[in-house]
Amino acid sequence: MARIRVGILGATGTVGQRFVQLLDGHPQFIVTALAASERSREKPYEAACTWRLPGDMPVATRTLMVQAPEPPLDCDVVFSSLPAEMAGPVETRFAAAGYPVLSNSSSHRMDDAVPLLIPEVNAEHLTLLDACRGTGRGFIVTNPNCSTVMIALALAPLVAGFGVEAVAVTTLQALSGAGYPGVASLDITDNVIPFIAHEEEKIERETRKILGHLNGGRVTPADFAVSAQCHRVNVVDGHLAAVRVRLARPAEPAELGAAFAAFSGTPQALRLPSAPARPILVREEPDRPQPRLDRDAGRGMSVTVGRVARDTVLGHRFLVLGHNTIRGAAGAAILNAELLVAQGYLEPRR
Amino acid sequence: MARIRVGILGATGTVGQRFVQLLDGHPQFIVTALAASERSREKPYEAACTWRLPGDMPVATRTLMVQAPEPPLDCDVVFSSLPAEMAGPVETRFAAAGYPVLSNSSSHRMDDAVPLLIPEVNAEHLTLLDACRGTGRGFIVTNPNCSTVMIALALAPLVAGFGVEAVAVTTLQALSGAGYPGVASLDITDNVIPFIAHEEEKIERETRKILGHLNGGRVTPADFAVSAQCHRVNVVDGHLAAVRVRLARPAEPAELGAAFAAFSGTPQALRLPSAPARPILVREEPDRPQPRLDRDAGRGMSVTVGRVARDTVLGHRFLVLGHNTIRGAAGAAILNAELLVAQGYLEPRR
Amino acid sequence: MARIRVGILGATGTVGQRFVQLLDGHPQFIVTALAASERSREKPYEAACTWRLPGDMPVATRTLMVQAPEPPLDCDVVFSSLPAEMAGPVETRFAAAGYPVLSNSSSHRMDDAVPLLIPEVNAEHLTLLDACRGTGRGFIVTNPNCSTVMIALALAPLVAGFGVEAVAVTTLQALSGAGYPGVASLDITDNVIPFIAHEEEKIERETRKILGHLNGGRVTPADFAVSAQCHRVNVVDGHLAAVRVRLARPAEPAELGAAFAAFSGTPQALRLPSAPARPILVREEPDRPQPRLDRDAGRGMSVTVGRVARDTVLGHRFLVLGHNTIRGAAGAAILNAELLVAQGYLEPRR
Amino acid sequence: MARIRVGILGATGTVGQRFVQLLDGHPQFIVTALAASERSREKPYEAACTWRLPGDMPVATRTLMVQAPEPPLDCDVVFSSLPAEMAGPVETRFAAAGYPVLSNSSSHRMDDAVPLLIPEVNAEHLTLLDACRGTGRGFIVTNPNCSTVMIALALAPLVAGFGVEAVAVTTLQALSGAGYPGVASLDITDNVIPFIAHEEEKIERETRKILGHLNGGRVTPADFAVSAQCHRVNVVDGHLAAVRVRLARPAEPAELGAAFAAFSGTPQALRLPSAPARPILVREEPDRPQPRLDRDAGRGMSVTVGRVARDTVLGHRFLVLGHNTIRGAAGAAILNAELLVAQGYLEPRR
Repeated sequence: MARIRVGILGATGTVGQRFVQLLDGHPQFIVTALAASERSREKPYEAACTWRLPGDMPVATRTLMVQAPEPPLDCDVVFSSLPAEMAGPVETRFAAAGYPVLSNSSSHRMDDAVPLLIPEVNAEHLTLLDACRGTGRGFIVTNPNCSTVMIALALAPLVAGFGVEAVAVTTLQALSGAGYPGVASLDITDNVIPFIAHEEEKIERETRKILGHLNGGRVTPADFAVSAQCHRVNVVDGHLAAVRVRLARPAEPAELGAAFAAFSGTPQALRLPSAPARPILVREEPDRPQPRLDRDAGRGMSVTVGRVARDTVLGHRFLVLGHNTIRGAAGAAILNAELLVAQGYLEPRR
Repeated sequence: MARIRVGILGATGTVGQRFVQLLDGHPQFIVTALAASERSREKPYEAACTWRLPGDMPVATRTLMVQAPEPPLDCDVVFSSLPAEMAGPVETRFAAAGYPVLSNSSSHRMDDAVPLLIPEVNAEHLTLLDACRGTGRGFIVTNPNCSTVMIALALAPLVAGFGVEAVAVTTLQALSGAGYPGVASLDITDNVIPFIAHEEEKIERETRKILGHLNGGRVTPADFAVSAQCHRVNVVDGHLAAVRVRLARPAEPAELGAAFAAFSGTPQALRLPSAPARPILVREEPDRPQPRLDRDAGRGMSVTVGRVARDTVLGHRFLVLGHNTIRGAAGAAILNAELLVAQGYLEPRR
Repeated sequence: MARIRVGILGATGTVGQRFVQLLDGHPQFIVTALAASERSREKPYEAACTWRLPGDMPVATRTLMVQAPEPPLDCDVVFSSLPAEMAGPVETRFAAAGYPVLSNSSSHRMDDAVPLLIPEVNAEHLTLLDACRGTGRGFIVTNPNCSTVMIALALAPLVAGFGVEAVAVTTLQALSGAGYPGVASLDITDNVIPFIAHEEEKIERETRKILGHLNGGRVTPADFAVSAQCHRVNVVDGHLAAVRVRLARPAEPAELGAAFAAFSGTPQALRLPSAPARPILVREEPDRPQPRLDRDAGRGMSVTVGRVARDTVLGHRFLVLGHNTIRGAAGAAILNAELLVAQGYLEPRR
Repeated sequence: MARIRVGILGATGTVGQRFVQLLDGHPQFIVTALAASERSREKPYEAACTWRLPGDMPVATRTLMVQAPEPPLDCDVVFSSLPAEMAGPVETRFAAAGYPVLSNSSSHRMDDAVPLLIPEVNAEHLTLLDACRGTGRGFIVTNPNCSTVMIALALAPLVAGFGVEAVAVTTLQALSGAGYPGVASLDITDNVIPFIAHEEEKIERETRKILGHLNGGRVTPADFAVSAQCHRVNVVDGHLAAVRVRLARPAEPAELGAAFAAFSGTPQALRLPSAPARPILVREEPDRPQPRLDRDAGRGMSVTVGRVARDTVLGHRFLVLGHNTIRGAAGAAILNAELLVAQGYLEPRR
C-alpha cells in the first residue's frame, strides 16, 4: 500500500518534534508537509527548528519547507500539536477542507462529534465519525491530555472488572509536558510547582468522557467523580499519578494487579505498528514505577502500574506512570491514526 | 534564669546539626554534651562532623568532645535524633536514668505513656507525664514524623471548626528527610521515588494519635481514617502534602482558609522563643506553596497552606508545606522543650 | 543624614528584586521610585511584579507605582538593571538629566569615562568622574559582569603580591545569572550548557579594565591575557570559577592563600554598610567552595577561594565562588553607591 | 566461531551492569560467569543485583549465580570493574591463573607491562603483551579513567597533526562516574562539588601514557604537561571536558575541526562490533556538545567535540564530551577485547 502522507501542524514544538521522530521510518505514514507559527515559516525545517531531542533530526524532514498551518497542505492527513489558542479554529478549517485531523490539542476534545480516543479503551467511540462518512468532509479525532491517557488506561480494566465509583488522582508531572521553553529552570530547581493551568479540569472531565458510553450519537460521561491535584516536578519526561479508587465491588489488590496485567485491546488484537505488546505493565517492587526507569517501557507506549494496595479511605490505590510525550501525546495520536487506517477511516486521498 | 544544659544524641547527623544550629544563642538552652555513633567518638565535634548546612559550625560547639550516647552525660536534658534502630533502648536508658528526653525518633512515639506533641495542637497531652512527676525518673516526649507535623497542624483547625471524617494525603518529600547520605543522586536526578519506608504507616497512625483525646491516662486516637501515599522528589528541604479531607459539616473553602489563618495555640499565647507568630500561613496565589519559596516562612516554624478548594470526591482539598528539618524535626523538638519549660516540666537539674 | 532616594530601573527583574530586597532597611538609601518595561507600568509594584525570592516582598515598596524608565523620576540616584538592549540609551539619558547612575548593565562598562568599579580593587578609578564634578551633569558607574567580579577580586591580591602574566578561567555559572525566565528547565535538567552569550568576551575584557591603571583620565587595561570558557550548570545561585594563573614570580601555594586571606580594601577600611568583614574567605577543605554551602558567606558579599595549588601548565590554580546576584550584581552596585557616598560623589539632591 | 565466554568481576555495580547490558547479544562474547563482593554471592544475579539501568535486566544473566571474584571461573576472559581497593591483587591472581583480564579499574593502568589502551589511539601498545605469549600466563589490558578516554581521543589527531606542547583540562563530570550509591543527592542538588578523589592525577598521568611511545618494551610518556581540574555536576551520564591546548605549530581552528572529523583508527578499519563509525563527531552549534543531547552519539561510543576556537592564553580550545559508563568504562573494555580478538590475543580457551 502506498504510504499515507502526513502534514504536521506545530512541527517545531516539543510534541511536533516527537511526531517527526516517531514517524521516521513508519510503515504506513510519510511526512510530506510541516507547518508552524509565523517565526518559523518559509525556512527548511532544519533552519526553522532547534532540535531538542537526543539524536539527530531525521534526514528526510530536514529540507521540507515550513509552511503556514492553513489548508491546503500537500498531505492526506494532518497531525496537530498546535498551541491551544490556535488549534481550535485551524483544526476546524482543516476538517472543513476535507482533511482528517489527528489532534493532540485540547480545543475539540469535549466536542460532541469528536472522539476522544484511546484505542485500547474506547475504540468504539470512532463510530461518532460515521456521520461524516461519504460527505467529503474531514473529521477531527483527539487524543487525551497527557496525564489523562495514563489514568484512563489504568482505570479501564477496573471499570470493566470491578466497577468504579470514585477516583482521586494526584499527579507528579514532567517538564516536557509544558512544551518549550515551558517551565523556567529557576522555578523548578530545588522546587515543586503545585499548579498546572487547566490540568486538573482536563483530567476530571476527559477521563469521564473516555470511559463513558455511546448513547445515540454522542458520549454520556462515566458517572463516577474524578478529582485531580496536579504538580510539576523536576523530571524531564514521564508523568506519575498516585491514584485512589473506590470500586463497586470488593476485590483483593492481587485481583486488580491481575486485571491490569491481563488488559489488552484492539491495537494489540490488530497488531497496530505502534501498539505495545502489553499496554499496562505491572511491577512488584515496592519503589516502582519511577519516571527515569520506566518511562521508556514498550518504547514509551506502555504505562507501568505499581504499588497496588488497599487504601483506608477509598478502598484501593496504585501508581501509574507513562511517557508523556509518547503515549501521552505524539505516540497517542499516531496510534489513533493507525486504528483509523485499520478500520477504514483513513487512506491515501488519491 | 540559668540556661538549661542540653545533650544532643546523634549530633553529627542531618537533624543533629540542625539542633546545634538552632540552639546556638538560644535564650533558654545551652549545648553542653554531644553524642554520636562509634565512628565519631572521642573527637572534638569539628573533627567528628562534616558540617553540611550553609554557614559555619557554631563556634561554641566546635571543641565539645563527641561521646557515646549513654548516660550519664553532662546535661539537664537530652535531645535525640538517633537512628531508629538505636533510639528505642538508648532513649529508654536515659529516661530511666532521670533525664528528660526530647526525641525526634520514631521508636517511642506510639507508646501509651509518651506524648506525641505539637504544642499548638495537643499541649494537653503533656499531662501524660504527670505519672512520672516526683518519681525521680525522667520521661520521653516525642515530636511527630516530619510529614505528619505539617498535616496534623493543618488539620487541627478543621477538626476544631468543622469535624473531620476522612483524610487522604499524597506527599512530595524533600531529600533532607532521608538524612545523610540518604538518597543516592543517581536515584533521584530526573526522577521521583514513589516510596519511603514506613512513612505512610507513620503518617496514618501518628496523625490520629496527635488529634486524639486524652482518656484516663492514655490517648484514644481520632476516629477518622487517614490514607497516605508518599513520594521522594528532587528538593533539598521542604515537604509538600496534597490533602483531601471529608468534613463533618458543609463549609465554604473560604471558611477553611479563615480557620487556617486564625489558628493559634499555646506557643503563641506563651510567646515561646521558637514559636512562629502564626503557625499556619495562607497563600492565595494559585501556584503556592512551593518548597523553595515557602519553606523558610516563620524561620522554618510556620507551615504554609494554599489552593484551598472544593474536591469532587472528598469534599475539600488543600496543600500544606513546611520545613522538614526545622518544623518537621529539630525545631519541633525544641518547641516541645520550650513548652516543657513554660509548664514546669523541665528545669536545670541542680 | 537624610536618606538618599533611590530609583530602580528594571525593578521587576531578577536583579531588580534583589535591589529591592537588599535596600529594604538600608541605613543610607530609601527606594522611592520603580521603573520597568511597558507591561509592568502604571501598576503598584505588588501587582506588576511576581516576587521570586524566598520571603515576602518588602512592605514599603508594595504600593509604589511602576513607571517608565525615563527621567525625571522622584529620586536622587538610579540603580539600573535594565536589559542590555535598553540600558545603553536609557542610562545615558538619566546621566544627561543629572542623575548619578549605578548600573549593573553591560552597555557602558567599557566606556572610557565610566568607572568599572569593585570598591576593594580599584576605588581610585572613581577619579574618572572628576571631570563631571560641578557640571550639573550626572554620571554612570558600573559594576562588572557577575563572573568577572569574583575573578577580579581573587586576582587583585595576586596582582599586588606576585604579578600576574596570564589567567585561564573556566566557569560553572548559576541559573539566576540568566535572569527570569532565563534558562528553560528542559535545557538544563540532567545537563550542562557550555555556552553563555557574550560572557567569555566580557570576562576577558572587563577583568583587564578593572585591574588596569589610570593613565591621564582613562584606564589602560592590565597587560596580561585572560581566557574564559563559560558553562551554565544546574545551580540556582552561585558562580564558581576554576582559575589557572601564571605569576610573575615564584610562589608557594601557601603564599597565595595568605595573600587571599589578608586581602582587604577601602570598603573594609571605611566600614561601608554592605562591605563584608573579609572580601575573600579561604577554605582549606579539599572539596570547597561549593555553591550551595558558600554562596551566602558574608551575606553574599564575600567570595570564597579554595583548592589553591600548583598547576603543571600555568604554575598555580585555585577556585573562587561568589553569589552572582548579590556580590555579582545588586550588592555590587549598592557597595559602589556606598563608596560614592563615602567619597562625596553622591548625596541627597536637595 | 564459538563465542568467547566472559566472566564479569564486580557484576552488580554501575559498570558491571553496563557490561551485562552491552554484552547481551554480542556477536563474539557470551557472559557465563558473574562475580561480586561478599554480600551478593551465592544468589542468582536477579536476586543479588538491583538493576538500575532503564529497561530490564537481560534474561540470559538473571539466573547466573554470583560467585566470589577468584579464579577459577567458568570463562575464557574476565572483565573487571572491581572497586580500586580490591582490583589490584584480584586481577593479578586471575592473570597468574592464565586468564586474560580486561580491566576498568585503575590499579594496574600505570604498570609497565600493562597496555593502557584506546584502540583508535594506541593499538600498537598491545605489543607490550608479546612477552606473555606462549607462556600460559594470562595478561591484563586496561582502559583509561572515564574522563581520560574522552580527552586522549580528542588529543590524538592534534598530536598527530600539529604536535601538542601543553594541555589544560577542566572537567564537568556526571554522577554515574562515582558508581552507586556514589554521590549523595544532598551534596549535589543545587550544587557543584569541585573535587573528585584522585581524578586529576589520573587524567594527568594516564593521558601521557596513552599518547606516549613504545620504547624497548615499555611506554615513554608523552612529554607535554597535562593539567586537570575536576568537578562533579548534577548530570546522570556524560562527562564534559573544557580543553585548552598549546600546539607545536600554528593552525587555524578550522584545521583542528577537520582533523577531529577525519580521525579514524584500527577499530574502524577492522569494523570491530562496538566501534562507532566515527570516533569523534564535530558539532558546529555554539552551545554543543551537551551531556543529555550528545552522550548517546554512536551508541555511546563516539565522543563529540565542539566550540573549537582560538584561546588567548594557550592558543586553542575546544570541548569534548562522551558517555562515561559506555565509552568511558564498559564499552571501552569491550572495544579493547574486540581488538584483542581481531589481533589474535584472545580466543576461546579450549
